[in-house]
Amino acid sequence: MWSGDDAAFFPAPSDRLLLTTDAMVQDVDFRLAYCSGEDVGWKVVAVNASDIAAMGGRPAHAVATLCLPATTKVSFVDDVMTGMAAGAERWGIDLVGGDISEGREIVVSLSLLGAPVGNAPVLRSGARPGEAVCVTGSLGGAAGGLVVLEQAIPQDEPAARALIARQLRPTARVQEAAALVDAGVTAMIDLSDGLAVDLGHLTASSSVGCRIEAEAIPVDPNLLWLEGQAPDAIDPLTAAITGGEDFELLFTIQPRLFDDVKAGLAELGTAVTRIGATVESGRLIGRDDLTTWRQQGWQHLRNR
Amino acid sequence: MWSGDDAAFFPAPSDRLLLTTDAMVQDVDFRLAYCSGEDVGWKVVAVNASDIAAMGGRPAHAVATLCLPATTKVSFVDDVMTGMAAGAERWGIDLVGGDISEGREIVVSLSLLGAPVGNAPVLRSGARPGEAVCVTGSLGGAAGGLVVLEQAIPQDEPAARALIARQLRPTARVQEAAALVDAGVTAMIDLSDGLAVDLGHLTASSSVGCRIEAEAIPVDPNLLWLEGQAPDAIDPLTAAITGGEDFELLFTIQPRLFDDVKAGLAELGTAVTRIGATVESGRLIGRDDLTTWRQQGWQHLRNR
Repeated sequence: MWSGDDAAFFPAPSDRLLLTTDAMVQDVDFRLAYCSGEDVGWKVVAVNASDIAAMGGRPAHAVATLCLPATTKVSFVDDVMTGMAAGAERWGIDLVGGDISEGREIVVSLSLLGAPVGNAPVLRSGARPGEAVCVTGSLGGAAGGLVVLEQAIPQDEPAARALIARQLRPTARVQEAAALVDAGVTAMIDLSDGLAVDLGHLTASSSVGCRIEAEAIPVDPNLLWLEGQAPDAIDPLTAAITGGEDFELLFTIQPRLFDDVKAGLAELGTAVTRIGATVESGRLIGRDDLTTWRQQGWQHLRNR
Repeated sequence: MWSGDDAAFFPAPSDRLLLTTDAMVQDVDFRLAYCSGEDVGWKVVAVNASDIAAMGGRPAHAVATLCLPATTKVSFVDDVMTGMAAGAERWGIDLVGGDISEGREIVVSLSLLGAPVGNAPVLRSGARPGEAVCVTGSLGGAAGGLVVLEQAIPQDEPAARALIARQLRPTARVQEAAALVDAGVTAMIDLSDGLAVDLGHLTASSSVGCRIEAEAIPVDPNLLWLEGQAPDAIDPLTAAITGGEDFELLFTIQPRLFDDVKAGLAELGTAVTRIGATVESGRLIGRDDLTTWRQQGWQHLRNR
């Protein structure tokens, strides 16, 4: 342990706790060809902080485990730690300990403790029919960044750099989550697996249906540039609906509260878009069922 | 997350927390040739529970991450979960969530939250000169078990099975730690890296020396059987001093309190042995410095 004892010791951040864990595996979640140690360290913190934010929580304390091949350069480990420290500072996390093991490939995992901002956490299961379905920010950029990195797309354009940043340096919507709790969101999830999948989780947990207007979905504007560069590589709307790792928040709220939410998040510089509504049954984006979108997405993004 | 949401939610076990994390990596910490999924699951819980115990704490909530090759059988994953669940039940741990990733080798990691039993955790740094240095249980058995497993030693003898159990199914001294806190231990560490190494950590953190009587060290009695089977493979005293993974507790206490401690732990069925004393300076086991023992240990156990 970095604290120099068998375990870290600290005051509980609250009398009710949130705990999550997420790992990043070399050649599964990242490639060293385009991902620095700092990128990996930052992202593993962001991914976990996003989980805590999605529960309506604020992150507090973390421990990390690194598995590293014996050939790993010390400078790479330093870079991972630098990236973790930057993410920890950004979201107010105290990195209190960790464990380093040898392994054949790089695995960086983090466990993050947090506390609900309100009296109770925001679950996926709280949505009821007749509520507004909303997302923060824009969607599909992280998937677009992966296309730029994995294919022979020029990386010097501002749009390319912005897409790459969405993939390598995601932002956890921690402040936004706190504002959304205050505003009275009913259910929330972070978009780690893509809108079609995560909306499926939220609506299934809440036992509701949804009607999403495809044209209302805030597609990352840089995807239009990418489509111009590589028209066969990406369809912007499909990327926004099925691309993962945007780490935006998907939430439901009473329709009458939407304008206040929008104004509140604008103060944080974050857009929020109403993309549809919860209904009694049927889960549609445009005319297609979520399941259809997921299948199209896999085919379109994976089997090229 | 197994709890079906982005993070687990539960009441804080205390207003002061302990947090630790430890990973087990295939072919580094275990080999599938002799280690079942249940063994791996049990041990990763035990290793982490031992860290919390060593801080004078009781374990409470855990999250796990599994990295698994795509070829891993579902039954192996089930076995890991069964082993984790058994360890969790044994030490009163609530397994609240986790994350499964694909990877080239099996990595099982756990992060464990706990709470100090007393008003403050027991640190490595609390020993002062003139105290009794004590250990629970017996030492060297886990190293002996590894010799049995890695070499062509018959495994059907009770002594062989007992040594293997020390290696594959370690016990975390959780109840014992609580009793030791009540008794007033001044410093504590668990024996994960071996007596010579971990005593080095404790005495360095406390800025004290030590005089350990080699003949007082409670050598695992099954090592005498193993020495008879394979006299070139192991020296029992060296294994007890330098072998790792026994997960016994090494602690210091006022000498006048030792008899009470011994009686208290006897009620739990656990032996405790006074192996020496803290002094102002110099760190000796028998006539040799801890550093010498560590070097001998590595040579003796590793370079055969």
